[in-house]
Amino acid sequence: MASKVFVPLCVVVAAAVLAAGRAPVADAASAHLHFYMHDVLGASAVQVVRGPRGMFGNTVVMDDVLTEGAAATSAVVGRAQGQYIVASSQGGMDLMVSMNVVLSSGPFAGSSVTVVGRDDTGVAVRELTVVGGTGQFRMARGYKRII
Amino acid sequence: MASKVFVPLCVVVAAAVLAAGRAPVADAASAHLHFYMHDVLGASAVQVVRGPRGMFGNTVVMDDVLTEGAAATSAVVGRAQGQYIVASSQGGMDLMVSMNVVLSSGPFAGSSVTVVGRDDTGVAVRELTVVGGTGQFRMARGYKRII
Amino acid sequence: MASKVFVPLCVVVAAAVLAAGRAPVADAASAHLHFYMHDVLGASAVQVVRGPRGMFGNTVVMDDVLTEGAAATSAVVGRAQGQYIVASSQGGMDLMVSMNVVLSSGPFAGSSVTVVGRDDTGVAVRELTVVGGTGQFRMARGYKRII
Repeated sequence: MASKVFVPLCVVVAAAVLAAGRAPVADAASAHLHFYMHDVLGASAVQVVRGPRGMFGNTVVMDDVLTEGAAATSAVVGRAQGQYIVASSQGGMDLMVSMNVVLSSGPFAGSSVTVVGRDDTGVAVRELTVVGGTGQFRMARGYKRII
Repeated sequence: MASKVFVPLCVVVAAAVLAAGRAPVADAASAHLHFYMHDVLGASAVQVVRGPRGMFGNTVVMDDVLTEGAAATSAVVGRAQGQYIVASSQGGMDLMVSMNVVLSSGPFAGSSVTVVGRDDTGVAVRELTVVGGTGQFRMARGYKRII
Repeated sequence: MASKVFVPLCVVVAAAVLAAGRAPVADAASAHLHFYMHDVLGASAVQVVRGPRGMFGNTVVMDDVLTEGAAATSAVVGRAQGQYIVASSQGGMDLMVSMNVVLSSGPFAGSSVTVVGRDDTGVAVRELTVVGGTGQFRMARGYKRII
């Protein structure tokens, strides 16, 4: 995610809304979202903390653009706002991620999901957990897959 | 939340305890908590990280007092301990929040809920997710509303 | 957790997999994991942020070794990667914790759980929330007990 040779990440979010009494979306029990996340270090993402040795402990705050297609010029569908921490000290790049994915277009415009978890950037497909959300995703549960 | 002209935040927490076998509160399936949160930057909240441009990336750690009424002199009911990160780079103030709300009085004294999510401070009513808790709120799910 | 006189923490994780359609472990609805966590400040854990007064706001990133037994020479079963923040300003040591527990041996090798919550280090037994996971713990819910 911190590479200078920037590759947009393909992200799929599957969110299942719990059958809670107050959930605004009672019938639409699940949703799949598909978008590309443009994490550009030094632009949409800034390093705010530097660890004492190597990359271990480095912390980045991002406000990344999400687009419909892989091209950065593709239609914007939202933003991913949060942070990731390099939490591996033995080589590799295991990130501890906390972020809010805010949608700005489509049927879920104005709603958001909160994602927490591990992003082992050395693996082709990674999965993080959707721990909640707002608007139509109130109390959502699910997972986010980075391909 | 970082304004010098300090306004106590009115917070409502609705927590639904999952019907898990080990949940200590089997019958009391839900609870509503209502309190005011006093986030005073430079006092109960301290900025620990400064981003490289504007407020983007700024990180605050707080140990805010929670009171029954809006006045700071009102009865203390607990504390909100955690952090918030300014995760918006395009203006506005979207916070990524992670905090533990620890109750010190009332029927839930000694219990806590953990809250994660997005606090878009430009909106009158904000909603964050209760992802868990301790004591009577073990494995709780719910949401926290800031009015 | 930040003591120089290092005592390995005994950790029990109870994770209940939600009955979600896509959960890979449909039958094995719950699991108990037991291990010791070696949080050695200055070695496997590094302080990356220092607060402006006392320990309040100090932030540590860790990549702690997990072992089967209490001895550091005991068999390694995984790693705990994440961060903790000192979120108490009035004495005591209340940590806001976010971490991924990655298992490297046993039946759950390659799977991980994500843990968020409050670690009041002044209390003998602490409980944090499992908010999700990967692999066999996809969409897991549960709690983590530190004894």
